[in-house]
Amino acid sequence: MFVLGSLARYSNYQRRQVGCRVLAKLFSKESVSPSTISLSRNKMTSVQVAKPVLYSYWRSSCSWRVRIALNLKEISYDIKTVSLIKNGGEQHSDEYREINPMEQLPALVINDNTYIDSLAIMQYLEENYLDHPLLPADVHSKTKVREICQLIASGIQPLQNLAVLIYVGDEKKKEWACHWMTRGFRAVEKMLSATAGKYCVGDEITMADCCLVPQVFNARRFQVDLRPFPNVVRIDRELESHPAFIGAHPNNQPDCPPEAPK
Amino acid sequence: MFVLGSLARYSNYQRRQVGCRVLAKLFSKESVSPSTISLSRNKMTSVQVAKPVLYSYWRSSCSWRVRIALNLKEISYDIKTVSLIKNGGEQHSDEYREINPMEQLPALVINDNTYIDSLAIMQYLEENYLDHPLLPADVHSKTKVREICQLIASGIQPLQNLAVLIYVGDEKKKEWACHWMTRGFRAVEKMLSATAGKYCVGDEITMADCCLVPQVFNARRFQVDLRPFPNVVRIDRELESHPAFIGAHPNNQPDCPPEAPK
Repeated sequence: MFVLGSLARYSNYQRRQVGCRVLAKLFSKESVSPSTISLSRNKMTSVQVAKPVLYSYWRSSCSWRVRIALNLKEISYDIKTVSLIKNGGEQHSDEYREINPMEQLPALVINDNTYIDSLAIMQYLEENYLDHPLLPADVHSKTKVREICQLIASGIQPLQNLAVLIYVGDEKKKEWACHWMTRGFRAVEKMLSATAGKYCVGDEITMADCCLVPQVFNARRFQVDLRPFPNVVRIDRELESHPAFIGAHPNNQPDCPPEAPK
Repeated sequence: MFVLGSLARYSNYQRRQVGCRVLAKLFSKESVSPSTISLSRNKMTSVQVAKPVLYSYWRSSCSWRVRIALNLKEISYDIKTVSLIKNGGEQHSDEYREINPMEQLPALVINDNTYIDSLAIMQYLEENYLDHPLLPADVHSKTKVREICQLIASGIQPLQNLAVLIYVGDEKKKEWACHWMTRGFRAVEKMLSATAGKYCVGDEITMADCCLVPQVFNARRFQVDLRPFPNVVRIDRELESHPAFIGAHPNNQPDCPPEAPK
């Protein structure tokens, strides 16, 4: 009765989202609090109803972006792992499709709603958890951050994600991935040459850095030659020792297999 | 001296951007005020220094998104056409690469700065031209709008844009484009079934609608079967008679060739 009562104030859509959350609890056996995350010090603008749950895969670069953002904002969260490779990919299961119709990671269950897409999620966090901003206050720099985020999230990652590489086929996938990553990083490098300070845009860590680091990892996996991109390499190196980035690294995820390269 | 004087207060990066603007004026011979656009009634939060200039190609779906947004916000703008096909693509010229390092459309010169990427630009417009909002005020709906925008802008369009189709090759490009658009629209339809009212999210036009309509046009160009996506088709039809959408339509652009299908 309590559940029904509390659902009554929601729209159909919201009920479905809450349903997803209940489903979420059943779906994955693994639920861990990343050891690097302390209790949240970030204040939500409305009452926070439960600890956020991030659907994540250790090597998913889009999950990784959100893990960094949550860590930077010191928002405590649980992880539900979704294997992108086990049984043809758990992201294609009926259960997960209800959570994310795009059958991709990540998804974040937060404040009784489920949100998908790393940039939409980061923007949600930015507007609702005001401590540790991930966007600069000034209009121009903020737009530069968003340009770099979009360049990576629309211009690079979609062309080398798992679904596309499977469709391209084993024989051609390395050449394909290298081609699009090299092209994308050429543009990123040019943008960074105008915007970067210590980090992608100026001297504060922003969403652009949350997008850059996982993309550099992907580039290295495919042996993309990063030497022509000195700003990219420098900023990645700058961030590799930051606790929020260390905590979000694939090797520090609960589903990272023991045989993963260190 | 006036120009030098006014540049003195800018950073190196900003100077380069202003340089781009000057270059922009030289680059394209065509500069038109779209006939459907009246003088802007939208107020900029700071002093507006010149009429915005949109680098656009009639059939570029990303340019089209921004044309719709500018029209909805009643921001008067000029168009500089960049042909994506003439001479191997004017977007790959040295001049245009200085404007947009990704060698893609659109780019918007506004208030002495140049911004790229349609979503970053729309977000800039949203935060700086407050009339005619393109995002809902409430947190949940706003995030749903952004999810749909990203789903289209990261999950569909990058996989069927011109550069990718050229790389895929003439023989395979139709099958390739249809595959990714069908997959993407399946997810969009499922999301719309939960969020749509008259438009993509509720009963007000948002950025999601700015992204949806051009993507539907692309799907029709490649003869994607849209019958399984009734919400997509219904919302597209709802918007086809809206003046802002009519004014932004490829067929109503200055560079639309006379032989284009009506």
